[in-house]
Amino acid sequence: MTKAILVLNSGSSSIKYGLFKAEPGGEKLMRGVIERIGAGAEIEDTRGRMSLPLPETAGHMKVLQWLAADLLERLEDVEIVAAGHRVVHGGHEFGHSALVNPEVIGQILELSPLAPAHQPHNLAGIAALGQIWPEIPQVACFDTAFHQTQPRLAQIYALPRALTEEGVLRYGFHGLSYDYIASQLPKHLGAGAAEGRVIVLHLGHGASVCAMHGRKSVATSMGFTALDGLVMGKRCGDIDPGVIFYLMRDKGLSLVEAEAVVSNEAGLLGVSGISSDMRDLQSSDAPEAKEAIDLFVYSAVKQIGSMAATLEGVDAIVFTAGIGENSPEIRRKILERCCWLGVDLDVSANAIGRPCLTTPQSRVSGWVIRTDEEREISEQTCALISK
Amino acid sequence: MTKAILVLNSGSSSIKYGLFKAEPGGEKLMRGVIERIGAGAEIEDTRGRMSLPLPETAGHMKVLQWLAADLLERLEDVEIVAAGHRVVHGGHEFGHSALVNPEVIGQILELSPLAPAHQPHNLAGIAALGQIWPEIPQVACFDTAFHQTQPRLAQIYALPRALTEEGVLRYGFHGLSYDYIASQLPKHLGAGAAEGRVIVLHLGHGASVCAMHGRKSVATSMGFTALDGLVMGKRCGDIDPGVIFYLMRDKGLSLVEAEAVVSNEAGLLGVSGISSDMRDLQSSDAPEAKEAIDLFVYSAVKQIGSMAATLEGVDAIVFTAGIGENSPEIRRKILERCCWLGVDLDVSANAIGRPCLTTPQSRVSGWVIRTDEEREISEQTCALISK
Repeated sequence: MTKAILVLNSGSSSIKYGLFKAEPGGEKLMRGVIERIGAGAEIEDTRGRMSLPLPETAGHMKVLQWLAADLLERLEDVEIVAAGHRVVHGGHEFGHSALVNPEVIGQILELSPLAPAHQPHNLAGIAALGQIWPEIPQVACFDTAFHQTQPRLAQIYALPRALTEEGVLRYGFHGLSYDYIASQLPKHLGAGAAEGRVIVLHLGHGASVCAMHGRKSVATSMGFTALDGLVMGKRCGDIDPGVIFYLMRDKGLSLVEAEAVVSNEAGLLGVSGISSDMRDLQSSDAPEAKEAIDLFVYSAVKQIGSMAATLEGVDAIVFTAGIGENSPEIRRKILERCCWLGVDLDVSANAIGRPCLTTPQSRVSGWVIRTDEEREISEQTCALISK
Repeated sequence: MTKAILVLNSGSSSIKYGLFKAEPGGEKLMRGVIERIGAGAEIEDTRGRMSLPLPETAGHMKVLQWLAADLLERLEDVEIVAAGHRVVHGGHEFGHSALVNPEVIGQILELSPLAPAHQPHNLAGIAALGQIWPEIPQVACFDTAFHQTQPRLAQIYALPRALTEEGVLRYGFHGLSYDYIASQLPKHLGAGAAEGRVIVLHLGHGASVCAMHGRKSVATSMGFTALDGLVMGKRCGDIDPGVIFYLMRDKGLSLVEAEAVVSNEAGLLGVSGISSDMRDLQSSDAPEAKEAIDLFVYSAVKQIGSMAATLEGVDAIVFTAGIGENSPEIRRKILERCCWLGVDLDVSANAIGRPCLTTPQSRVSGWVIRTDEEREISEQTCALISK
């Protein structure tokens, strides 16, 4: 029997899963995604795309029960020895992944108000697997943990001290992605340069920037929640808190409505009025689409400047995640505005997505590195269960 | 008779005033400040400090009537030919100062929701003088006007387009101070360098940063309101909008209470728990005071990086306003973290507050230049009435 780790990334309406051999750097045996949970769930994997044979309103528990049975049936010679979960918020408590036990579940539950759109679904995945396979150990891997190395000045807001002490801090997110990229830096940049001042741009539907030194997070653009920082698909990024007060007091929006504006109706979607998907905007001729792209780039360039200031300089800039990996145009537009930092873009290397995006004489090197959060979860899970 | 311009900066509980000869660069004849309006107003000028002979609750109108009579009595040989007012918010309408007429008053009034803590008091000053001296022209000088040269990408938020179109924009503030500094740059930096990429830090009780190119604003740290950007005396500066939702939803604060937290209980005061005044923190041994100072510096350094990115480099960094002009320690702490940009600090020049803070070989020059918003208002008023 092959021993394997099941990795789950359980979101509000989708579950990504992966199966990895239970050893460091273990082979990826399978991966897939279940989407439209609660509205006629569909699975997409190596077999293609198909509807799940379940009632249309089936929730996370039913879907995971089906997935568990499906996996057992398909993988006769595989024994699942552990499960690793992405958990968005680990608060100040979790600087590393943690073996799930009732106490840890309680702590994750308590952190739910800090990530109400994600945390309950992460927990649903843990709860469901606990019922289906109560005998296998589960590991919670936190999106905030990587940023716990940030110096205190990067973590605190200029808020009344009591709020800081109760946990209103810049936690940062996308930590599993950054942790994975940090693990890949030596391979690409070389062992020495990997320890230098590196700015990583995780540009997906959610987007953030992380300043690393010695492959540890020293600053990041997301904060207490995942709303802050870069312009995102539907999220506003940096915004004056006065805008929230204006929306509520002067426009009469409720708290829920104001939150919906900046969380679901803003970002690329809000500026373009067309789509939250960068690909749609890039294939549009509308000036509003162009403006949304330009604002995305402008916001990334400003964040690079801000991160470079925290690092007091920069040695390398790395792009990852959907947009970062797949859009040479966005990478080019951002890097062209970083010449002043010492970036000498290699236009053709960037066009074909070669890992190194800059010329040999470039003082600051540019890179595109594919992220793999599931792999990172598998590695963290593997490390924890072998202890 | 000497013709003079009366300059008024009318705030919630104080009125600063100045009297300037009515000619470009005209001599400053007098200046003073009336404080504690509504709570036993006191005046401080060349005569020292004294209580106004008025009922304790006397408001702006009564105080200005007293001031007008006092000025007329003291200045027998002076004829006030115009009044210039600081008006905080000029919205998108006012890219320059404007001669006050009923239409302009209406526009200023309409902009009040964008600056509810300041705009009504600015208008009160205009209204009072209009009654006292109906025959003299009045000019409104806007704190936002200088930033109207910002490119559109620096002005828009990633918000739904309808909000952008109705005026939810990054207006920026401290424009009268920046305009004055811009006018002083050639004298200090030389005519050529003054047109380069200059980052100005206006560090007072309110604090912001402005990126200038060709002595025009191309980006600034304050936004829709004066809450955003740097850590300030009592204001939070940059903050995740999610914090506001957390305060209201999870902590049960009302809109007014949440706004009070980030406007009046945050910043240096909130972090230190001691004082909103930088001088108090600098003379304190408490670790909380040190942390507040360090966070102020950290936030300024990050903003310098962000502004440098919008300028694609920086040629000069200028400090102004209370803290910027008077605290060598804060200037040093900020500039020491800007070596990577090419700043070579001249420690002794900084200690004695010499205008040039850097060595001759410094690639980026550093400066301290005293600001004078009243002078700027006088100049703008003078220019407008001579048209």
